[in-house]
Amino acid sequence: MQGASSENRSPAGVLSAGVAVQDFVYSVDQIPTRPEKYRARDFATVGGGCAATAAVAVAALGGRSLLATRLGRDAVGDQIAAELEGYGVDCSLARQYAGCRSSISSVFVDRDGERLIMNFRDPELPDRFDWLPDLKEIGVGAVLADTRWAEGAKAAMTAARAAGLPGIIDAETPVREAEDAVRLASHIAFSRSGLIDWTGDDDLVAGIRSVVEETGAFVSVTDGAAGTWYADADQEGHVPACKVDVVDTLGAGDVWHGAFALALAEDRNITDAIRFASAAAAIKCTRFGGRAGIPDRAAVEALMKEQDR
Amino acid sequence: MQGASSENRSPAGVLSAGVAVQDFVYSVDQIPTRPEKYRARDFATVGGGCAATAAVAVAALGGRSLLATRLGRDAVGDQIAAELEGYGVDCSLARQYAGCRSSISSVFVDRDGERLIMNFRDPELPDRFDWLPDLKEIGVGAVLADTRWAEGAKAAMTAARAAGLPGIIDAETPVREAEDAVRLASHIAFSRSGLIDWTGDDDLVAGIRSVVEETGAFVSVTDGAAGTWYADADQEGHVPACKVDVVDTLGAGDVWHGAFALALAEDRNITDAIRFASAAAAIKCTRFGGRAGIPDRAAVEALMKEQDR
Repeated sequence: MQGASSENRSPAGVLSAGVAVQDFVYSVDQIPTRPEKYRARDFATVGGGCAATAAVAVAALGGRSLLATRLGRDAVGDQIAAELEGYGVDCSLARQYAGCRSSISSVFVDRDGERLIMNFRDPELPDRFDWLPDLKEIGVGAVLADTRWAEGAKAAMTAARAAGLPGIIDAETPVREAEDAVRLASHIAFSRSGLIDWTGDDDLVAGIRSVVEETGAFVSVTDGAAGTWYADADQEGHVPACKVDVVDTLGAGDVWHGAFALALAEDRNITDAIRFASAAAAIKCTRFGGRAGIPDRAAVEALMKEQDR
Repeated sequence: MQGASSENRSPAGVLSAGVAVQDFVYSVDQIPTRPEKYRARDFATVGGGCAATAAVAVAALGGRSLLATRLGRDAVGDQIAAELEGYGVDCSLARQYAGCRSSISSVFVDRDGERLIMNFRDPELPDRFDWLPDLKEIGVGAVLADTRWAEGAKAAMTAARAAGLPGIIDAETPVREAEDAVRLASHIAFSRSGLIDWTGDDDLVAGIRSVVEETGAFVSVTDGAAGTWYADADQEGHVPACKVDVVDTLGAGDVWHGAFALALAEDRNITDAIRFASAAAAIKCTRFGGRAGIPDRAAVEALMKEQDR
């Protein structure tokens, strides 16, 4: 009856801390290069932001997902929270500040998938993150943070460390802006550009070794189709990427981080967690759209099995 | 007691028909020229659209202002209507369509005021304008339409003609898209580019003469600091622009059209109406921001007096 008892167990939970953005995405024939007036072919309003999209991935994969983020008390902030809640993300730790503007991006995408992104973050949004309840109380098994909200990431990694839980930092450029959080994390998951930004060297394997030496943490770097390298004080290895037909990589890194955090919250071993994350991100890449392309657990497990053959 | 009786008279009304847009305006150091990620210095969400901004000008100048427009039944549409109502524009003739998206633009503005505008209009928005009540019932004294909603402009100009009221078309490019409405208007108020687009000739005075001959209407063309040329079957003339320090021309043309329509609704003679419109637009140009820079009547009358000296 192991299967049945496993199904009745309440799902593992992940707290994600970081940015939530509203993206205004215009489909264009060509990326504009001159200050003129252009007409877009199509348009969509979609949610974005590393931590927020990772939180959607956690929920889509069947985990309990909480998001701590800072929004403006404005129409965009209401829209961001409503979309996240629609995906099953618990936004009770998202704070809306009166007099502040929510983060927003306008994205122009051409037919080849090239993107021009214009982002605004309100410098008036208070940095502090002092409303985090006891992690045992909210019952999460792992904490994930992005580098876009340095104080939030630091508070989240501190709480994870105090609770003895995995604290994963999504180490995307500019990583140094969240240096305190990186040094507090138990798991530092770099993108290729994030690792090069941190080490100043494009040898990725040497890079993760040096960060292990520097921090004592588990360190990984994901390099698209080349897969993921990882190392800690005791081991190192490589997990290949799943072979898929890539349609749209938007949000794939965020999906990887959400799935990885959920796998750690579920006490999976590290290579299994990386395989789970890689499969989730790979499926996302086969589907058009950001959050709309995030797979459920059945699809991820099916791809993992296929890769095993 | 003429002053008192004039003050007690109910204000003249203008119906504006055309587009209402939400503009997402990013202040940037430089207009982007490559598909990369950029961070904006500042950001504002502001209402735009020719007819909508003209309707705000009518209200700001003390007129009764009604706007007929098509919106999506979405968060942006709610925001557009709420902002307009905040300016005192009656939106009971604005229609929100379920399943449609409201018009939206992202605007990048650099330190020199250069602009890159990316606009999206939902092609699914129904063209028809069949909810216009009897103009006598709604008690307006003039009707204004832009060229961005051809069917709306045509219905508005037809109704104005039937009621014997001035029907003003804001003849901005692409003018030919609203050709039926232009031919029905009693007053065709071109921008420089609108007139050149219509006649194919950059001689503005010859251009308005040819449009008078073609349509029998009153025809004007406004050319920024060079002022306004006008002509009809009986007269022609020129009204110089007010000399002001230009800070921001955003929306100045729309203010000109709203003020001109209100002056005609108030039965002012044509040169007085042009002077009133030119003064309102000139003050707008001295102030940063679109609608936020629209003057009230006292400021316009003060500038008109100053110009008389």
